[in-house]
Amino acid sequence: MSSVGSDQAPLSATALDVADPLASLRDTFSIPNGVIYLDGNSLGALQKGIAERINRVVKQQWGEGLIRSWNDTDWYEMPMRVGDRIAPLIGAGAGETVVGDSTSISLFRVVAAGLGLQPGRNVIVTERGNFPSDLYILEGLQGLRPDLEIRQSAAGQDPAELLDARTALLVLTQVDYKSGLIRDMKRLTDAAHSAGALTVWDLSHSTGIIPVELNASGADFAIGCGYKYLNGGPGAPSFTWVAPRHVDRVAQPLAGWLGHKDPFAFTPEYVPAPGIRRFITGTQQVLSLAALDEAMKIWEKISIAQVREKSTLQTSRFIALVEARCEGLGLTLASPREAALRGGQVSFTHEQGYAVMQALIARGVIGDFRAPNLLRFGFSPLYLSFVEIDRAVDALVEILTTRSWDDTRYTEKRRVT
Amino acid sequence: MSSVGSDQAPLSATALDVADPLASLRDTFSIPNGVIYLDGNSLGALQKGIAERINRVVKQQWGEGLIRSWNDTDWYEMPMRVGDRIAPLIGAGAGETVVGDSTSISLFRVVAAGLGLQPGRNVIVTERGNFPSDLYILEGLQGLRPDLEIRQSAAGQDPAELLDARTALLVLTQVDYKSGLIRDMKRLTDAAHSAGALTVWDLSHSTGIIPVELNASGADFAIGCGYKYLNGGPGAPSFTWVAPRHVDRVAQPLAGWLGHKDPFAFTPEYVPAPGIRRFITGTQQVLSLAALDEAMKIWEKISIAQVREKSTLQTSRFIALVEARCEGLGLTLASPREAALRGGQVSFTHEQGYAVMQALIARGVIGDFRAPNLLRFGFSPLYLSFVEIDRAVDALVEILTTRSWDDTRYTEKRRVT
Repeated sequence: MSSVGSDQAPLSATALDVADPLASLRDTFSIPNGVIYLDGNSLGALQKGIAERINRVVKQQWGEGLIRSWNDTDWYEMPMRVGDRIAPLIGAGAGETVVGDSTSISLFRVVAAGLGLQPGRNVIVTERGNFPSDLYILEGLQGLRPDLEIRQSAAGQDPAELLDARTALLVLTQVDYKSGLIRDMKRLTDAAHSAGALTVWDLSHSTGIIPVELNASGADFAIGCGYKYLNGGPGAPSFTWVAPRHVDRVAQPLAGWLGHKDPFAFTPEYVPAPGIRRFITGTQQVLSLAALDEAMKIWEKISIAQVREKSTLQTSRFIALVEARCEGLGLTLASPREAALRGGQVSFTHEQGYAVMQALIARGVIGDFRAPNLLRFGFSPLYLSFVEIDRAVDALVEILTTRSWDDTRYTEKRRVT
Repeated sequence: MSSVGSDQAPLSATALDVADPLASLRDTFSIPNGVIYLDGNSLGALQKGIAERINRVVKQQWGEGLIRSWNDTDWYEMPMRVGDRIAPLIGAGAGETVVGDSTSISLFRVVAAGLGLQPGRNVIVTERGNFPSDLYILEGLQGLRPDLEIRQSAAGQDPAELLDARTALLVLTQVDYKSGLIRDMKRLTDAAHSAGALTVWDLSHSTGIIPVELNASGADFAIGCGYKYLNGGPGAPSFTWVAPRHVDRVAQPLAGWLGHKDPFAFTPEYVPAPGIRRFITGTQQVLSLAALDEAMKIWEKISIAQVREKSTLQTSRFIALVEARCEGLGLTLASPREAALRGGQVSFTHEQGYAVMQALIARGVIGDFRAPNLLRFGFSPLYLSFVEIDRAVDALVEILTTRSWDDTRYTEKRRVT
């Protein structure tokens, strides 16, 4: 916890930066001058080696190697290898995680696979406030399985209350995309198992920012995003994890040749590969996958525990400073005050939230806005300094005290979360 | 048709190159020195502008623009815009085609959507010899819809014979991946419609090499590959087309937020976007999509009719030269002799096919091999000259007459088609 607002004298941001073991990582990122980037929970920043890596993939591997590169380079193994890079961040073992396709598609695969393990059960429990695209995937699956019932917990309701003997799956996002609230994976997994249900975890807002313990929590299935805290680039492929006790007996409906036991035998019948490889469908988008691979190398030098420690200091400091300096200026904290319950972001409501965020962005402080009134600030400890946090608060204070915003109607259309 | 082997004196390859209106396109591609590339039907070659485009996307749009690029660049519209670039090649109108995800995933979406239009019918007719991954997708769907029956025509059998009053869909690949045989889209679509069935066409080996007439044929659904004759790069995203008469009344099961009518309203209920946009699921892999976008610009200058004309000359010449010069050397044509029935590739069988292809590749003539005995040569008229065809035949003649190959066992594992 930050000491700002405590009885002790608050540490200066400069002192915190000097003491920060991750501070030197900032130099490996390309953050534009004049920008304080508080939206790494939407699209992580670029690392300097990535452009060169992609240039090599394009010019040498594709251009020179042509089709031979499927034999001579790492293209074919990248989905598994990048999965292994992600594994330590999510409490998974080697060979348990695979990368490919969008988060929504990966979710479809694991939900369908999980249902296949639960004959006689036809209910999926989720939250009404889950990330909408996750709900759409469940709804889409219902189109194919009209017997499926989707049960949604209301805001503030414990989804565990909805579990019963008909529940096949509990499908939750671990860290809420609006508030940053962390769900208790162990407690909810235990509750699901007690009801005979299995769990599917969306780790999009967890991976790379909080320690996740899939195996230790007894979780069953998980998927997550490559372009937020993993900094894999716009639309980077997602990952999929399945508990080793399940993986060799599950079928997933997007059966494709690269998940086949022997893809190049070209047999008319599908035989799934052993293990998590069966969750690969078709040929992967190599350029985007290579960018994520390169982005993940930073984790060879650091641990998720270090990142979580800095993250907690940063979000706590931001809350303390905002609340101390913006009292009476219309902001209300919309994230958990308790650091242990909070992911990597801090949200505040403000009735002019859209206009305030536009004014911040105009000053180079890039967060994002969620209708109707939510200001959302993401803190990526790999490239964010404590001094920047203080400066972001300076900008917010200035905007709110001078009311220097355009009373703009909300017209934002394409912010991708 | 090439005049090689006719009563007239054969035209020289040099004369054909001089007369070729597409010859200058070769300079826009980066083909390595010493390589004659006859595998553009597996992975199309690199165009020179692509590395620079991707570098801009990485450094400027991602690195400098960060999340703002979802508002300020073309990322959001690329799936539709690249679809519109493909439309003229497949006989589609503007706004009817969308790009994203792998071919297998796109196939899953349209097959499920098509089934939704056919209540009371539960049979899918396809070919036993269809591309295996297409069969796997049908099998995967069957896992969710156990009532589904998949009926496969045998080699040489007309799949139209299997249509009946229970048939929901006829799912075919227009150009066979092994032989290059072109299926008659109009005749088979008419036959399907006469039986009350709808058609789903996989255009992976058609698009960019033969004219396709989706609307004129009355086709219902189609998908195709971005990394073969479209030269979009390794694992480039696929495209999806749905007949305008169907598109606003179909549902696809991979419902995701970027196919939602109002993605940024974040409503818990899915409402599909009008038109083909509903076939987008999640966030697209921008780097790979941008490479395909850039690759498609070449079609602003040329027509598919020009490409087909050169393609026919090239494949006919290759067959004529090989048969004239390799008589008695163990090769048997495995592609249609009639040019009108043949796509962009020519296949021959040879009992030492794997070893012969390895020997060709060692000499820089890159085709591919399909077990057990098929040599497959793809001819991409955008970057292949007639002189190269003659040289490829020279190499084949030399290898076969001197039997200069290693008697290697087939160990190839990763050649992606």
